[in-house]
Amino acid sequence: MAATHTLEESFLPIAPTSDFPIQNLPYGIFSTRDAPEQKRAGVAIGDFVLDLAVIAAAGHFKAFNGSVFAEPTLNTFMGLGKASWDSARATIKHLLLKDTPTLRDDAALRARALVPMTNVLMHLPARIGDYTDFYSSREHATNVGIMFRGKDNALQPNWLHLPVGYHGRASSVVVSGTEIRRPRGQVQADNTDPTKGSTFSACRILDIELEMGFFVGTGNKLGDSINIDEADNHIFGFVLMNDWSARDIQKWEYVPLGPFGAKNFATTISPWVVPLAALEAFRTEPSFGPEQNPAPLPYLLDRNYARGTYDIKLEVDLKPENGKAATISKSNYKNMYWNPKQQLVHHTVTGCNMQPGDLLGSGTISGVAQDSFGSLLELSWQGSREIQIADGETRKFLKDGDSVNIRGFCQGQGYRIGFGDCEGKVLPAHL
Amino acid sequence: MAATHTLEESFLPIAPTSDFPIQNLPYGIFSTRDAPEQKRAGVAIGDFVLDLAVIAAAGHFKAFNGSVFAEPTLNTFMGLGKASWDSARATIKHLLLKDTPTLRDDAALRARALVPMTNVLMHLPARIGDYTDFYSSREHATNVGIMFRGKDNALQPNWLHLPVGYHGRASSVVVSGTEIRRPRGQVQADNTDPTKGSTFSACRILDIELEMGFFVGTGNKLGDSINIDEADNHIFGFVLMNDWSARDIQKWEYVPLGPFGAKNFATTISPWVVPLAALEAFRTEPSFGPEQNPAPLPYLLDRNYARGTYDIKLEVDLKPENGKAATISKSNYKNMYWNPKQQLVHHTVTGCNMQPGDLLGSGTISGVAQDSFGSLLELSWQGSREIQIADGETRKFLKDGDSVNIRGFCQGQGYRIGFGDCEGKVLPAHL
Repeated sequence: MAATHTLEESFLPIAPTSDFPIQNLPYGIFSTRDAPEQKRAGVAIGDFVLDLAVIAAAGHFKAFNGSVFAEPTLNTFMGLGKASWDSARATIKHLLLKDTPTLRDDAALRARALVPMTNVLMHLPARIGDYTDFYSSREHATNVGIMFRGKDNALQPNWLHLPVGYHGRASSVVVSGTEIRRPRGQVQADNTDPTKGSTFSACRILDIELEMGFFVGTGNKLGDSINIDEADNHIFGFVLMNDWSARDIQKWEYVPLGPFGAKNFATTISPWVVPLAALEAFRTEPSFGPEQNPAPLPYLLDRNYARGTYDIKLEVDLKPENGKAATISKSNYKNMYWNPKQQLVHHTVTGCNMQPGDLLGSGTISGVAQDSFGSLLELSWQGSREIQIADGETRKFLKDGDSVNIRGFCQGQGYRIGFGDCEGKVLPAHL
Repeated sequence: MAATHTLEESFLPIAPTSDFPIQNLPYGIFSTRDAPEQKRAGVAIGDFVLDLAVIAAAGHFKAFNGSVFAEPTLNTFMGLGKASWDSARATIKHLLLKDTPTLRDDAALRARALVPMTNVLMHLPARIGDYTDFYSSREHATNVGIMFRGKDNALQPNWLHLPVGYHGRASSVVVSGTEIRRPRGQVQADNTDPTKGSTFSACRILDIELEMGFFVGTGNKLGDSINIDEADNHIFGFVLMNDWSARDIQKWEYVPLGPFGAKNFATTISPWVVPLAALEAFRTEPSFGPEQNPAPLPYLLDRNYARGTYDIKLEVDLKPENGKAATISKSNYKNMYWNPKQQLVHHTVTGCNMQPGDLLGSGTISGVAQDSFGSLLELSWQGSREIQIADGETRKFLKDGDSVNIRGFCQGQGYRIGFGDCEGKVLPAHL
């Protein structure tokens, strides 16, 4: 449902198509070009970053120690919990409202606290202790299953019973704008006969995966589990994610323990973490979409929420080097079969402990329509058809020099909750 | 080969069966019972821990800033690199030698710097950024393969071409002595028919995996790879590891992305990190064992070292609650098919970046003989035979109250390079 409350406005001029109106207020870690190592927390507002370390030093955060915003990651703030997040959000929103004079009428404070976005460098929002990637779009799992096992065995028997996921590599999660080196590794020597062994090669089938991820705020103790009714209180916020994938390397290596080198060379996320509070107005109705059938086991059953996620429009742009960007996929986060609460609960069911700053990826978000598929593997149907790019260019998979940008937003009445860029450019493999 | 150099001795009395002679000098993070939160670095020597923060404050480390030892993890020291590790080891060894008066004859310094082991609490040696587990014992992979796919398809086609591995969960790596809560989760409703779905249950097939792990010291930049000829310089040292495994949960969940909740509830490591320098005398000869066939691709080919690892005797003790401990497995790290250099090199081949404190597990270390198998799954051959414990007790898998301890040592002439305990006790599942 779209938000229907009276539209709040900031004293800053913000275009209706801006990703960062006062309804959003996403958190990030930034520095400025003249002092790139001096990282601290900020909130995006229109074309500015509000420096939270400055606001904290001015004494505006009362409910918790505002020095957390002077730290180079959001981990401590994430770990403070929902009451502190709500309090911080209320303080920040109040300061930015049209009718609040505190910042609006204090030119000296404004000059220190509002940094033009053109002058900032964005960094990873958190030290990511662990990164997990799920596989929760039924359409994506079905498409990939059809390609590898045929139509009748597309979904594995467990898929409809639990959100299948695997542990990813945290060290290689990078922030938007980081260039991506095409990986090298072992690929099957004969495409159809694995018994012929492998050769060493630069990846020839480099792909993207359109995903979203969420950051864990407060965690749980080892040996305990997070209850589905409390799961939302543990989720800090969402980012866009591109899970770069080397399909030829993956094909050879992934049996029987899952993807490894084919994924661990890079995962790009957008720098702004959109808090759950900003997405609340865009939850899908509990009645949205087909119900989960078979019914999940009780620990996964979301009574108030069904399979609902959030209505977040997602797009993938591909821009060849010296070429024009073209949108190659339009999907939506609401296409997910398993929702983020179910992912988090399942992740902890055996007692696994979550920590502030852990990142959980959705898995590739494909819809039903062909132009909503979230990977080139699906868009080109395993390389069997060309994807049209601008100026008559076509692609099956990524070429060196290609840039990929994922964008996403929730459309409210007169405003957008946007996520900023999630971009990366492919560099040629090392010789 | 056993070490043949003249035996160095400490001024402290150390039994020939001690894990911690002056030839070892493993690093750990400890605190004392009266100030459990005051963590700092120490080295195990006989029945004492040498407090490196005290030694550093006394000005004994010249080649680098000794304040790294006052930190609550070894990560910074690990990241300093081999020259600093060598320098620290030389300084520590010199201070502990029989003929060095500095510490020996300074009662006040001794009282502050040498803490009796009975008075210390051990902690995780590092903040583990990422934890990866390999699958590098051919005997283990073959045993498990026979059970699941039959004798003719036991090893997957890729297994002899690359060290198969997967990303594990870093947050649930715990130090020896931490109690292990039996996990709960989804298990297949019908053992032979996955299409019948799942039920929720406490794990009924709780297992161990006898492993070793190594800590990465210096890492590599994202997009680059570590060369096989330089791999040793990136390895800080080794620990024992128990990769607790819920086999029934694993069976249902692991297709197609690998083990998840069946492993992420706990992984136990020993607290003392034995440096590579201490193991050097126990490298297996390049001619040890059958050669790797097919020959690895050049990036994995270890010209000077063949498939050689280290001759480390490993044992698993199982102790029922209120019962006697019995040794249920005797294996050896030299049973590994892929050596740690090859694991590290393969991990980075696609450009994955390593960081100081990353932990890489060997995979279950099984030998050829039945009593050298490294898991209960193999020892009981999938529950088809009873494993004899003391006093006529038997086991197929773990019962609540069971304690498992992994021990390991290299046998020198007149001394041992030991690893201490890697122990955990099974608590009943939450209701």
